[in-house]
Formats: sequence, structure tokens, C-alpha cells
Amino acid sequence: MSRPVRIAVVGHAFMGAAHIHAWRTAPRFFDLPRHPEVAVLVGRDEARTRAAADRLGIAEIETDWRAAVAREDVDVVDICTPGNTHAAIAEAALAAGKHVLCEKPLANSVAEAESMAAAAEEAAARGVRTFCGFSYRRTPALTLARTLVEDGRLGEIRHVRAQYLQDWLSDADAPLNWRLDRETAGSGALGDIGAHSVDAAQWVLGDSIAGVSALLHTFVPTRPVSGDAQGLGGSGDASGERGPVTVDDAAAFTARFAGGAVGVFEATRYALGRRNANRLEINGSRGSLAFDFERMNELEFFDGDDPTAEQGFRTIHVTDADHPYAGNWWPAGHGLGYGDLFVHQVADVVAALDGGEPVRPDFREALGVQRVLHAVETSAADASRFTPVA
Amino acid sequence: MSRPVRIAVVGHAFMGAAHIHAWRTAPRFFDLPRHPEVAVLVGRDEARTRAAADRLGIAEIETDWRAAVAREDVDVVDICTPGNTHAAIAEAALAAGKHVLCEKPLANSVAEAESMAAAAEEAAARGVRTFCGFSYRRTPALTLARTLVEDGRLGEIRHVRAQYLQDWLSDADAPLNWRLDRETAGSGALGDIGAHSVDAAQWVLGDSIAGVSALLHTFVPTRPVSGDAQGLGGSGDASGERGPVTVDDAAAFTARFAGGAVGVFEATRYALGRRNANRLEINGSRGSLAFDFERMNELEFFDGDDPTAEQGFRTIHVTDADHPYAGNWWPAGHGLGYGDLFVHQVADVVAALDGGEPVRPDFREALGVQRVLHAVETSAADASRFTPVA
Amino acid sequence: MSRPVRIAVVGHAFMGAAHIHAWRTAPRFFDLPRHPEVAVLVGRDEARTRAAADRLGIAEIETDWRAAVAREDVDVVDICTPGNTHAAIAEAALAAGKHVLCEKPLANSVAEAESMAAAAEEAAARGVRTFCGFSYRRTPALTLARTLVEDGRLGEIRHVRAQYLQDWLSDADAPLNWRLDRETAGSGALGDIGAHSVDAAQWVLGDSIAGVSALLHTFVPTRPVSGDAQGLGGSGDASGERGPVTVDDAAAFTARFAGGAVGVFEATRYALGRRNANRLEINGSRGSLAFDFERMNELEFFDGDDPTAEQGFRTIHVTDADHPYAGNWWPAGHGLGYGDLFVHQVADVVAALDGGEPVRPDFREALGVQRVLHAVETSAADASRFTPVA
Amino acid sequence: MSRPVRIAVVGHAFMGAAHIHAWRTAPRFFDLPRHPEVAVLVGRDEARTRAAADRLGIAEIETDWRAAVAREDVDVVDICTPGNTHAAIAEAALAAGKHVLCEKPLANSVAEAESMAAAAEEAAARGVRTFCGFSYRRTPALTLARTLVEDGRLGEIRHVRAQYLQDWLSDADAPLNWRLDRETAGSGALGDIGAHSVDAAQWVLGDSIAGVSALLHTFVPTRPVSGDAQGLGGSGDASGERGPVTVDDAAAFTARFAGGAVGVFEATRYALGRRNANRLEINGSRGSLAFDFERMNELEFFDGDDPTAEQGFRTIHVTDADHPYAGNWWPAGHGLGYGDLFVHQVADVVAALDGGEPVRPDFREALGVQRVLHAVETSAADASRFTPVA
Repeated sequence: MSRPVRIAVVGHAFMGAAHIHAWRTAPRFFDLPRHPEVAVLVGRDEARTRAAADRLGIAEIETDWRAAVAREDVDVVDICTPGNTHAAIAEAALAAGKHVLCEKPLANSVAEAESMAAAAEEAAARGVRTFCGFSYRRTPALTLARTLVEDGRLGEIRHVRAQYLQDWLSDADAPLNWRLDRETAGSGALGDIGAHSVDAAQWVLGDSIAGVSALLHTFVPTRPVSGDAQGLGGSGDASGERGPVTVDDAAAFTARFAGGAVGVFEATRYALGRRNANRLEINGSRGSLAFDFERMNELEFFDGDDPTAEQGFRTIHVTDADHPYAGNWWPAGHGLGYGDLFVHQVADVVAALDGGEPVRPDFREALGVQRVLHAVETSAADASRFTPVA
Repeated sequence: MSRPVRIAVVGHAFMGAAHIHAWRTAPRFFDLPRHPEVAVLVGRDEARTRAAADRLGIAEIETDWRAAVAREDVDVVDICTPGNTHAAIAEAALAAGKHVLCEKPLANSVAEAESMAAAAEEAAARGVRTFCGFSYRRTPALTLARTLVEDGRLGEIRHVRAQYLQDWLSDADAPLNWRLDRETAGSGALGDIGAHSVDAAQWVLGDSIAGVSALLHTFVPTRPVSGDAQGLGGSGDASGERGPVTVDDAAAFTARFAGGAVGVFEATRYALGRRNANRLEINGSRGSLAFDFERMNELEFFDGDDPTAEQGFRTIHVTDADHPYAGNWWPAGHGLGYGDLFVHQVADVVAALDGGEPVRPDFREALGVQRVLHAVETSAADASRFTPVA
Repeated sequence: MSRPVRIAVVGHAFMGAAHIHAWRTAPRFFDLPRHPEVAVLVGRDEARTRAAADRLGIAEIETDWRAAVAREDVDVVDICTPGNTHAAIAEAALAAGKHVLCEKPLANSVAEAESMAAAAEEAAARGVRTFCGFSYRRTPALTLARTLVEDGRLGEIRHVRAQYLQDWLSDADAPLNWRLDRETAGSGALGDIGAHSVDAAQWVLGDSIAGVSALLHTFVPTRPVSGDAQGLGGSGDASGERGPVTVDDAAAFTARFAGGAVGVFEATRYALGRRNANRLEINGSRGSLAFDFERMNELEFFDGDDPTAEQGFRTIHVTDADHPYAGNWWPAGHGLGYGDLFVHQVADVVAALDGGEPVRPDFREALGVQRVLHAVETSAADASRFTPVA
Repeated sequence: MSRPVRIAVVGHAFMGAAHIHAWRTAPRFFDLPRHPEVAVLVGRDEARTRAAADRLGIAEIETDWRAAVAREDVDVVDICTPGNTHAAIAEAALAAGKHVLCEKPLANSVAEAESMAAAAEEAAARGVRTFCGFSYRRTPALTLARTLVEDGRLGEIRHVRAQYLQDWLSDADAPLNWRLDRETAGSGALGDIGAHSVDAAQWVLGDSIAGVSALLHTFVPTRPVSGDAQGLGGSGDASGERGPVTVDDAAAFTARFAGGAVGVFEATRYALGRRNANRLEINGSRGSLAFDFERMNELEFFDGDDPTAEQGFRTIHVTDADHPYAGNWWPAGHGLGYGDLFVHQVADVVAALDGGEPVRPDFREALGVQRVLHAVETSAADASRFTPVA
């Protein structure tokens, strides 16, 4: 049997837990060339990292990521920390010859992302792979969407409307956290969730955004510095000290794609009642698609080639054996969940090692998303003027 | 019994037919102070106007609107013609002391709309009323939406997303018609359907758009000059002569409301599969609403005051006896149709005559919509730069 | 021009108003061979009948239906009264040579229905037509459903599940009314709404129910004799006198169709929250259909011939120009309402006079529904034993 | 640290894989008193069992379940084999002092189920626990449904309609498999999926079915003996030998609950397009609920206490931190999948060991489901006559 793929996971919050679950589950449902094993969990605080490792079933920990990426027994470094740490960790790992899976957005600035992409290209020449964790691409419904577009079933694409709507900041007294701090998170709704929309739209269309006209807004400029976190939000101490929110609460922009489509994008964490509505709707000359992650097992497809009297959006339950990824799981109709996307992601990553088919997006492609985010911020700062993606 | 209200209807296409059906039906379901009667139908072509009058059950016709608005026996002039004719007809009618119901958009330019609003104000002093036909306001679900916002059930409004999606131009060979001609229609998707979104959003919020950043686009610059019309679109003669489309095919813009909300608007006639998706979604600090005219009898309402574990968007079937307008029709659950909105509209108009409660929007309020459309065109022509609504 | 069709409408409550609206509207939207006119409205109470006639715009009234059906100037008798009066009025009208449109269910017993069907057959020999008002057949979506089944698009039919769910009796103190009285209404949910399901299922399938196994139940055996009616239900005087409910509150039965399909039927007025959910779902070997009248403009169609990865229920918005009836109304996507079904019904009736294509269901076909209802009651009274439809 | 819970899993097909995934995942997301470990996998065929164990990451195998249940190092026997083997394995395991988790339906006959329940009761006196794998109870949405009913939010329950619709037998040439063999499976759709509906309805209502009137039907009496399995169905060799289907293809029955509610149940594997529509709808005097497993993260709740004008079915996305089970997983709106239900199930099982709160259903409660299935078969064989549940 081939030797295992050994992974160092950096970070053990929401994303770290999701990735570790995935590394453990993937070999049980997917036929992988090598067996992945999480070798070490990395966190700054020893006690908390040890507790997380125990809960997640990982034997070893490191409190210094530099030590982790230097370990002989590590093949892949999986970065699940905030965006301000990505460049340093990723570049050190690449220099040490490790494959890197890095959470999105790739970095907090275009400059960092460019540096990472350059390092990735240099490493690629040595057979080292990079991946950026735009996990929604691993939703079977979105993968099917991409296939339909690629096969020309939508014809010429005219419209894209992408909304990523959450509501965990609706309460003006939800507490501050790192996602509201520009230094750590880079941006707010834009980079946290809008980045997913940009990536998904460009990927499904096989096209890129040429320019944008954007608006950023912060509804609640200060929030309690302490409180009880719950999920992403929680309940802050309304009567206590407040600190500044230094990122956007909402981003909205129109876009022109290189291929001629018109896009409308919106990202917010104030859409009360929309817990995680990552929506994508595409209209072409031959067909249309609609997707909402709150119903992640479904894809709506309108086939303009159907006879007029029989046309309608079809709700495809994307759980059949011949749908992407789905055949590895349960019988048709037995849906998948959010956590399963990460299983798909790491299965794809493992398959890409050792000369396998590269998995998109690599750092180069993720840099493209970063450039769109940058154009959005530039336009928003310039009275929404149309700004080409550099 | 009080003397009837006598109406001259100008125009007998889609809109004219809808209005005439409404004038006839309203007194059968609504308790009106006076009985409306369509006294005369006005059209330029005598034979076609006569045929329409016969079909629609109207005894008299006129081929010159000037004669019609001058008739002693006419109380209300109901204008159902393209936008380029509105100002002349409306102003003549007001000068003759007739109440005026004018289809939307009010005019093809802000200048015309201002002139009409001025004439309306002058006439109002003489007890003459004006109305602009933003008929979607008469949807029970949207009226309920406005009530919920007015009652504070949504709290502070943060987000508006309004889409008006149709698809009758998806076929690049659908024929030219007056709606694609700038001279006649003023604009394309923007004024035809985007105007409805602007009006509905401003009305439901009780707020106004302060500025916009916009993009206009024409996907198909030329179309067959002849062909078979069907519905709004049809099948053009693809091998024959083509003429220019001089209006926008699609409009997209971000907006800032005076009260602080962020808006995203989109209007298109290229959203294949969306036959008439007039959608409005609003998120506030206490609640949210969602509406799609393709399910016109339903309003989605999310009440943030519900206990967390029981929160969800409620699908309210807006057909109960205590819903707006609905009690005049059928038992609960027996839905209304598009044509019934016009019945509500004329019932409101009749109730407003003779010193009744004014009905919104009057020309002054409709001018406000026109100003937003103008700002959209200005911004689109200026690289999407943020443009205040003058 | 051909002479008008003159109609006597008997009854002026919910159904009478709906029919009269339809007679008036049909010639404005449908191209009819003759022009219908409601000549006379018939009601027992002179003052109330006069008031209704005034509101509905009918010049003449009669308080004795015998006088009305004898009038020389009446061509069609339109019966909108409770079931216990149908046989007498219809048979007198047929004897007088009038065409008859009779509300459903055809009668309160099989014996009456058989007598009516016999009279109808005798009259048919004289060119006199009968129709039974199963108006839901006129829903464009259900007409399309029938076409799809007829064209073999569903293949061999295996399953029918039909539910007619209302909720106006959910409140145990809603007042008694004629629909709760066996003498007047014949039965409860079974005949009032279950009859629609039976008719729709048999018609869409082109098949007939061979036998049933049934359960009838009355949840609330007594109700206030007085109270405020609202819609179909209302608010009874809870502290006052109560009278007996003598009909079923709910009916549920399994069925076997002659062609081999298995059916499950349910009718109730206690399904809280389902205002008027007239649902029909059909599964065949090649395709499936689903319909819910609360979304009357939509038909769900699953085409088993689609490639597996693209299969899904399509939501067809049945408002296109080439859908049944829809082309006579508005552009695509501008939905119809409940009242419009009656317009379709009378348009079909007028087209069927004077040797036109017969319109289904006639009395003979409606008798078939009555026989199913009878088998349901027989089975329910015999411990749900399977009971063939005689 | 406490010693682990060691499990023997018997069976390694669809259900075995689901259970093993769950045993491995549960301790990573749930705070369990002891750590579960799958000690041994049991299968009849050594090579296939070894291959499955390798894939699923289990070190040891046994080919004789008798050896497995006798092992000293096993605490729990988890039975994932067809129904005809349940009684023997479970009773041996209980005799050996092992806790038993047994897949549903508990057995293939009431006699076997009674024997198992008796053995369970005898073992319970020794502190040994039994569980039956009605896994749908672990859906957060259905758990929430039960809480709402238990809290009286639905008032007096009037209606239950439960449908379990699949379509993997729609193709008349799908191949024979053990689920179509009476000897192995006990019954067809009835026991395979109808059992889930019976259990869910009784559990959510906190009530039991008093009697039924039933119909069973087999649409396709013979099927190819060989072919390519895919999911549950597949593609049979249409030109080859056919063998008999000895179970029901579809079951439909009406039911009366002890508490007065009327139920309508249907189970089929011929509902083309319904991949796994496990639906439950409940109407009470104060509220209503609707659930469809194809949207397993959603529960529809109608609260009759809402003001009339605001009433509607709420779509609750049952993924909030304060929803059952959900808080252990992801942030709100990030849905769960089918596989996650089994994680909930084993987490509940582990929590119930060592004197924890008993987990329902135990064998006694599962016997109740078996008795309903038996009454259904008895009624179906007796012309659908109403048959009390013995």
C-alpha cells in the first residue's frame, strides 16, 4: 500500500474542524490513491490547541506554525487561519516543499496574493501543488451548473446575479470579532462571503469579471467588545464598552464580464432571515440556472430548448449516482450537508497530488478573485466609478 | 342615485384592454360612491378602434384624443398610450377640467414630467385629481408589505433588492416594436419595468432614493423590423431587414436611500425563464419581506421577534378577508390575477373623486420616479459614477 | 350580428356572483359565436335579490325560479344554488328547452343525479345541452395536465394523490351554515370539495375510479347557530345555542382506478393554514405531475425522458400564449385568478351551443362523480370495506 | 479517561457504511461520556468483508455473527442486515449482555418482534439497552416538530398525512434484489419506508394508531433476475430471465389515531421524480406542520395564534444553534445531510449507556410499529376492512 499523505492543519476553529472532519472522512467514501492522515494540529495557545486535538482525534500538536511546516513527516499544509496570516505560512510551506491548501480569500491584499501566486508558480516547477479553499465549488449542484454552462446549454450568457446573504450581524449589539477587524480579516462581507460569489460566478461561467462599479457600507460602526459568541454572531454586552467595526458590513456592485455578461453582486451579513443564502442565478440565450445554498442539494435549470408549453425551471435534486460527487455517498434523494463539501475538496486535493489532474483553483486563479475584490474597494472609494479589474 | 363617472380611455392595446375590463368590473365587487362607465374609446385608426370598441363593449369611439378630452360627458381621461404622448394628452385633459389617470412611466423625460406635475398642481387647486398607473401597488401582497413597514415591523431598513425580470427579448430575432424605440418609449427595460421597481421600493419603504450608480446595456443592437408579434415579444423575420434598438435591454444599479438603506436594482427582458418576475426583497433590523409577482398572491414575511427556534419566512397567502382588497372578492385561498389589480386601481380612483381620500401616486409622486430614472441614465453615461437624484 | 345568448342565473351568493362576472367578462376576452347577457337574476327574497341585481348590474329579477325557467327570452339556466335544489330546477329548465349549466356536485344523491342525467339525455336529442360546473377543469394548468396525460407523456399511470384542503372550520366555534346541513348540502367536505378532486382526477387521467375504501369523520359535532359569517367560515357565538353538524368534516379514501392506478384522496375543511389547497399529484412510468390550486398558475411536470442528470420537476408558469386559455388574456407571466376560471367555463359553454363541440362534463359525466361519492359513503358506513363504484 | 465503547457492526452495505461513518464522527462533534470505536465488522463473505473493513478503516472482521456477539471486547452490537436476521442476532447479543442497536423494521413479523421485545425487557433488568434505528427521528426538523406538538402549539391534532415516496422501481425492468423478496425483507414499500412514516407520525404526535383500512398493490409482478445495481435500483437485463416480486410495490391506508386524529398514509417506490420524499403534514386546531425529507433542513410551521393577516407557513431553517443537534455542527444556515442523522443516532445511543437517559425507540416501542404494519397487511387481505391494531 502507498504511504499516507500527512497533513498539518493550522487553525482549529470553525474551518479547522471542518477540514479535519473531511480529511478523516474522505478515504471512507472516495477511492483515493493515498490515505490522508492529519499528523499535527497547529494553534497558538497550547491548552486550547491540545483540547481541540483531543476532541478532533489528533495525536500531535504544535504551537508554532514554523515548526509544523518544517516537519519532515508533513506533506500538506492546510491553512485555516484568518487572512492576514496566509501569506507567511503558505510561502514558508511552499519553500519547505509542502503542498498547500489555503482557505479563502487567498490573502488580505493583492500584493500578498501576488507574492503567494509567484511562490506557488516557483514551487509548481518542483511538483508542489497549491489549492485555495473555495469550498462551494464542491457543491454537486454548482459543479453540475458549471458542466451545463461548459456544454453550451445556456448559450450566450447575458446575466449573472449573485447574492451572498447572511444575518448574523442584524443585531446591532452582536459583539465584535476578528471578522469585523480590517487588520485581521482584510475586509468584511466582501472578502468573507462576497469572495465566494465572485469565485463561483467566474468559475461557473468560465469567464472573468472585467470591471466593477461598487458600493461598500457599514451599518453599525461600533459594537460591544465583549459578549457571548454564538455561531458567527452572538449576543454582545450592550451596556459595556464598544469598539470600532473597521470593515464593510455590506458590498454591492455591478460588473461587466469579459465575455459580455452583466453581473449584479451583493454580499451582506444583515439580511435578516437569510441564514446562509449563497445564491447564484444565470440567464443565457438558451437556458438559465438558479441556485441557493440554503437548498444546497437542488439546482434550478431552465432549458429554453424545451417546447414552449412545457418550459419551466426544473428542480434537479442533485443526489443521483451520475451527479458530481453524489454517487460516492447515499442513494438518490438522500441529501448531502455543508460538511460534506470539505470531504469533496480534500478528495480532489489528494487525487491531484503525485502528478494527478490539477485541482482548481490554485493560487494563481485565487489571485484573480483577489483582484476583483480590490477593484471593488477601489471603485467604492471613488464614488462607485467603473473600475477595470487590473 | 348619483350620476355615473364617465371615462374616456385613450389606447386599446394591452393596457387599454386591462383598464376597460377594470372600469367594468370594479362596481360589481367594490362599493363605489359613483358608478364608472367607459363613455368613449380613443384610437388613431378608425377601423381598428371600432373593432376594439365592439370587442370591449364600448359604444362610442373617437380618433382624435383632443376631441375626446374636450367632451362634456367625460369626467376622467385614462391614458394608455406610449410615454411620448402622455404630457400632451394629460395637460390638455387637465386644462379641460378632467381628472387624469395616466399609465406609467409618467413621461419620457424629467422635463415633461415636471410640466405635467405643475399642471397637476394647478388643476388640484380646482379639485381635479391626477393618478399615475403604478398598478403593482394594488397587489394585496405589496399593500400588506407597505403596512408592515409602516407599522415598524421591519425595524430600521438596511437592504432593498428589487429585480424585474422578463424574457420576451431573449430570442435575438424577436421583432422590433415601439418598446424598443427611444423616441416612443423613452427608455427600455429601465422605464418599462424598472420604473415599477423604483416606485414599489420607494412606496413600500416610505423613503426615497438619494442617489444611484448605474449600468445600462443593450445586448442585441438590431432586430428584424417585421415579424409575428406574440405577447410582448414574438418571432421576427430573421432573414429580413433589421432596424436599430435604441433603448437599453437591461439596467442595473446600486442605490442609497435617504434613510440609509442600500438598494440593488435590476431590470431586464433577457432573463430567460422569468416570465414576469417582479421581485422585491427587504431586510430590516426586526424583519424581512420577499415578494415575486409570479406568485402574486403570496408575501414572504420574516418576523425577527419570533423565538429564534421558530423563526422563518412565512408564506402569507394574501387572500383573507382582512387583507387589502381581498375581502371584496372570493373566500380565502382563491387567488387573484393580474387583471384584478386594475380593478383595485380604478376602485381607488373612483373613491378619490369628489373630495375622497387622494390616491397615491399622483403626478407629483410619479415625477419622483422619473427623477430616479434620469439619475440612472446620467450615471450610466458617466462611467457609473454615483449620481444624486436631483 | 347573431342574437345574444340570454341567461337566467339562479342564486346570487358566492357562486352566483362568480358566474355573473364571468358571463359579463367572457365576450371581452374570448371570441364567442354569440354574445352572452344575463337577462334575469333569480332569488327567493325579493329585497336581497334586487340589491344583488343592482350591485351586479342585472336589470331584471325573479323570485320564483319556475317563472324564470319558463321565460321566452331565456336560453340558458345557470344554477348556482345548494345541491338539494338542482334536480327540480334543472329538469324544469330542460323540459322548457333551456340549456343548463348546473353547479357541482350535480345533486345530493345518485337517484337525483340519475334522473337529471336521464332528462339531459332526452333533451340532448332535442339539441339542448347540459354542463356541470366543475370549474377547476378550466384552470390552464389542469387543462395542460390533461393534455400531457392524453399525449402519453406520463406513460402508464401508477399513482394519484388528491387532496383538497381548506381550513375554515378549524375553529370549533365557527358558526353553522348550509354547507354543514345534510339536507341542503348532501354531504360535507366530501361533496363540497372532494367532488372536485374526484372529477379532476378522473378527467385528467381519462380513467374512472372502480372502487373505494373510505373513512368519513366529523370532528366538531355541534356548532353555534348564530354568528358572523366571514368568507366561508366566520366567528360564531360561542356562548349561545349550538346545533348539530349533520355532514362529514373530513373524508379520506383509497381508490383503485379501472386502468390500474392506485389513488389516495382526502378532503377536509380542518387543515389549518391550507386556505384552498386543491392538490393533485400523478405518477406514471414516464412522467409525473403536481398541482396545487394555491399556486394555480403553475404546473409541476417531471419528464422521465430527460437525461437522468437533468431530471427534475419543472415549474411551468402556465401563462404563455400557447397554453390553454392563457393566450386570451395577458402577456406571459401575468397570472390569472380564481374568478377567471368561470370566464373560461362560460366561454366554453357558449362555444358549445348551436352545434358546437360539446363541453365536458355534461350531466352524464357528472353522474359518474356522484356515483363515486356514493361509494365513498357506502364504504365508510361499512367499516371502510372496499366498495365498487356501481 | 473512561474506557471506550466498542461496537460490532453486522452488515456492510448502505446501512453498515452509514453507521460506521457515524460511530467515527460522533465523538468529534458531540460531547460523549465514552468514546465509541468500531471493534469489528461482520459479514458472511470473508473477501468482501475484508475489503469493506479496509475501506471503512476497521481493523478486525468476523464472518460469523455468533462469534462477534460473543466477543469479550464488544459492548454494543449494531445490526445492519435485512429484517429476517434481526431476531436471531439481537436475541443472541442480548443474551450475551450486549447493548443492541437494530435497524428498522424491528423484524419481519409481529411474532419475531414480540420475542425480541421480551428479550429486551429481560435484558433491561440487567442494565442492557436496546434501540431501533428509526433514524429519521434524528432529523433536527422532525425533532423540532415533536417539541412543538408536545408543547401544545398545534392544539388538538386532527389530520396526519404521511407519504414516503421514492422512485427507484419506476422502471419495470429494474432488477430484482433482496428488498423485493418477502422472505428476506418481510414486506415491500410498507416495511422499507412506510415503517418510517408510521414511526414518525406516532412519535411526533405522541399518539398511536388505533386501526387502519389498507390497500397493498404490486405494479410489476416479475423483474429481471440479473442486471446492474445502481443506488437502490438500477438497470436490469430486460431480455433475460425474470423472477417474481413477492412484496408490495405500494401501500396506502387510512388510519384512526387513539387520540382522534385521522391519518392518511402512502408508501411507494414508483413515484417517479420523488427520489426520497419522506413527507409528514399535521394539522391541529392551533397550528400545522409540514416536512419533506428532500428538504431535510426545513420545517414548515403554521402558527394559528399569529394575527390572521400575518398567518402563513414559516419555513424554519432548522440549523440554528438552539435547534436540536444543530448547535454541534456549523453556523446557522449551513445545512446537514442524510449521513449526519446517523451521527445523531449513535451520539444518543452512547449517551444512553451506563445509566443515561433511555433513547427512544427501544424494542418495545418498535414492536408497536410492527403491529401497525401487521394490521395494514391484515386489512389489505380483507378487502380493506377497518382493522384495529392488536
